[in-house]
Amino acid sequence: MTNYHLTPSQFREEGKKIIDWIADYYEKIESYPVLSQVKPGEIKAGLPENPPQKGEPFEHIIRDLDEKIMPGITHWQSPNFYAYFPSNTSFPSILGDLVSSGLGVQGMIWATSPAATELETRVLDWLAEMMDMPEKFRSTSTGGGVIQDTASTSALTAVIAARERATKFRSNKTGVREMLVAYVSSQTHSSLEKAIKMAGIGSENLRLVEVDEQFSMRPDLLHELIREDKKKGFHPFFVCATIGTTSSNAIDPVRKIGEICKEENCWLHVDAAMSGTAMLCPEFRYLKDGVELADSYSFNPHKWMFVNFDCNVFWVANREELISTFSILPEYLRNKATESGEVFDYRDWHVQLGRRFRSLKLWFVIRHYGVEGLQFHIRKHVEIAQNFTRWVKDSNEFEMVVEPALNLVCFRHKAGDDFNMALMNAVNETGKAFFTHTKLNGQVVLRMSIGQTYTEEEHVKQTWNLIQKTAGRMTQG
Amino acid sequence: MTNYHLTPSQFREEGKKIIDWIADYYEKIESYPVLSQVKPGEIKAGLPENPPQKGEPFEHIIRDLDEKIMPGITHWQSPNFYAYFPSNTSFPSILGDLVSSGLGVQGMIWATSPAATELETRVLDWLAEMMDMPEKFRSTSTGGGVIQDTASTSALTAVIAARERATKFRSNKTGVREMLVAYVSSQTHSSLEKAIKMAGIGSENLRLVEVDEQFSMRPDLLHELIREDKKKGFHPFFVCATIGTTSSNAIDPVRKIGEICKEENCWLHVDAAMSGTAMLCPEFRYLKDGVELADSYSFNPHKWMFVNFDCNVFWVANREELISTFSILPEYLRNKATESGEVFDYRDWHVQLGRRFRSLKLWFVIRHYGVEGLQFHIRKHVEIAQNFTRWVKDSNEFEMVVEPALNLVCFRHKAGDDFNMALMNAVNETGKAFFTHTKLNGQVVLRMSIGQTYTEEEHVKQTWNLIQKTAGRMTQG
Repeated sequence: MTNYHLTPSQFREEGKKIIDWIADYYEKIESYPVLSQVKPGEIKAGLPENPPQKGEPFEHIIRDLDEKIMPGITHWQSPNFYAYFPSNTSFPSILGDLVSSGLGVQGMIWATSPAATELETRVLDWLAEMMDMPEKFRSTSTGGGVIQDTASTSALTAVIAARERATKFRSNKTGVREMLVAYVSSQTHSSLEKAIKMAGIGSENLRLVEVDEQFSMRPDLLHELIREDKKKGFHPFFVCATIGTTSSNAIDPVRKIGEICKEENCWLHVDAAMSGTAMLCPEFRYLKDGVELADSYSFNPHKWMFVNFDCNVFWVANREELISTFSILPEYLRNKATESGEVFDYRDWHVQLGRRFRSLKLWFVIRHYGVEGLQFHIRKHVEIAQNFTRWVKDSNEFEMVVEPALNLVCFRHKAGDDFNMALMNAVNETGKAFFTHTKLNGQVVLRMSIGQTYTEEEHVKQTWNLIQKTAGRMTQG
Repeated sequence: MTNYHLTPSQFREEGKKIIDWIADYYEKIESYPVLSQVKPGEIKAGLPENPPQKGEPFEHIIRDLDEKIMPGITHWQSPNFYAYFPSNTSFPSILGDLVSSGLGVQGMIWATSPAATELETRVLDWLAEMMDMPEKFRSTSTGGGVIQDTASTSALTAVIAARERATKFRSNKTGVREMLVAYVSSQTHSSLEKAIKMAGIGSENLRLVEVDEQFSMRPDLLHELIREDKKKGFHPFFVCATIGTTSSNAIDPVRKIGEICKEENCWLHVDAAMSGTAMLCPEFRYLKDGVELADSYSFNPHKWMFVNFDCNVFWVANREELISTFSILPEYLRNKATESGEVFDYRDWHVQLGRRFRSLKLWFVIRHYGVEGLQFHIRKHVEIAQNFTRWVKDSNEFEMVVEPALNLVCFRHKAGDDFNMALMNAVNETGKAFFTHTKLNGQVVLRMSIGQTYTEEEHVKQTWNLIQKTAGRMTQG
């Protein structure tokens, strides 16, 4: 035997079977229980304890995929998945990512595969145009975009770049020696706290600003806190405003927060991970009013934009600040081409060095759907959420908790916290739908996140009927 | 129009075309110039400045892929790619990753798709067995493995966990307040310096230990530096030992370094990104002698193990230290199941929260090749490197710089630095092969990294002939 590889012709055969397997999966996806029903350890117990000494035929792997792995899958791509957030994919994205896997290039610097860098730059400029983002976030201006894996990593990137700017790039050399303080709201995603810890700032130096009745950050309280901290000798350096909190999709007032950041010389990071995709539609862009005051902005094409995970977009207003923070090249290796903007070496724009060719899937999606196709689907999901809201308001047993800004509906049954938790569990256990809960003002709230690729109004209607029927049975029982 | 999506049957059709496109690519891969010949900006200029308003037919996207993207691709999967490091893929890996894209699940915590967590745990325990790693790195003991994107992120993870252990988990709260000091060799990968900066330690607090004539860290000098730092009031907390430096594949003496770490109470991270894959073969395991003294260990299945990027394995000896560092759940939400090891929530094992189902591609590769198939290919690459070494030694014009431990050959023409750089560029410009250089002891050294999936001895032989012929022509000219 000269080698153990599949030949290209074997790959044609096995690959086409996998394509069919995926198509079959989507055709029957509604027949699976949305939430996996397995117990801890059940999947692992079905897999051999020891690795195979000899290679196995491909059909055995696929057989085990069906029999041993699939029962442990929670079906995020089901149209009846309403949990957490819309982490959705689409066939064009799957195929774009497949081409990326096939090419297997490393895009760590321009030179290692120029197309990987230049397509990314081009597509992120397209996105900036598609969302009417400020000029400064474009590669043709002072800033630019870079694809990151997740909004968490983008948050870490922003915190570290802000830390360096605030300390005149001293912290990278000496370590964190100043009393830096950062500000988020009480509703901000936990990844910001994690970033503050990882960057060596410390969670004691993270202030949680209180929110208003819409769960949006109160800028007056932010300003107060900053002033107090300055009086005490702290150095306020970073504020995160959120467009769409994970819990209730609350929108922070970016303009007011941005004005305070300018006055107080803080880096403003806008975390639009949850709802940034909505900016594809002009009618929702009021939600990002003031974004021209931001130093960085991040949103997730892998949420609600039909691009499979991972694909986060991080825009920065001043790329030199970013590169000065993350470049690991000694000064004498920096070159004119990089600094003129003629070529970007994206490994100097973030945490990692190695880079997958992720712009391909984004390019496939934008070209397949076009701006108008993407807008169509975003609008449809928002419309379904509005209809769901009406159904809740029309019922006697349920109530809305906040008015939905977009596609996340926060509601509850009037019978109290325990009832709501029991109701949610009962519906999820049917396998016919999967949704999750949060707590707002100490109360259990049910969340319907409407944004999976194949979710149509009839799915949501059936789920609403199921919720009502289950609640009715529980009330009677 | 009710939607803009591809239907499953359209996906069958387009997907099979992409499978054929990839198979075609591998059949003709040797006809492309290995190193892309485009100039900065050339690819971007070929792409429209504005995004498409309307969706486009799939065949237009593929046409542009061929015409506008492919000229900017450097062909990492070509058998004549000898640059940087072996970032190789394989057909089984491509298909495993395709299934992952198709399922589109989020594996951030156990509950979001139990199979994604449990397959990962199982496969990383398999790998620990396949490489005879210490018991403590297995999920059945005190530690365990987790898939990360890159060795850079694993290095950052190790640095932050070490920082927390050294400060009794105070730094996460207060920020970095102690005079922590870390140690690497002068040959250690730059990602360690980057991690030390990002974690708020500061590059001034990173000591570069000198190396011996094999470019391996000198443990005597490490110990001296630690003792001096302690006398000066610093707090030594972290040492990184490398199994295979990027520059010359030097191997640090892990056992001696580990003994010093135990004595001086430092976290030992072993970075085996470059050559960890070789541990699949018993005859190369002497290179990791002493690894049972490590607190963490990282290697890359996406390097030399036929798994497409990204797939880094991070093993930790004490998972509780890791989880205490990265968990963002308040204490009251921690549960018995997590702490007993019954379920892992991998988002608490690293920087990111969102997680792709990456263990699928690893599982496909291990099952397809089996232990014996993987060993066969590793051994073949090492044997080719040994033959290349002999050819260099047999020539009058070239010389070896270090004796290769595995599959990286460092050699040079005797005519000096400028000649070597010119020779390398001349060969790379032919498009028939691509290799890179490094500097060792201030001298330019040529590197042949022999580890791409389809590299056979005849490819290397032809490249060696090309190098000799080109050098001959340059000497005469």
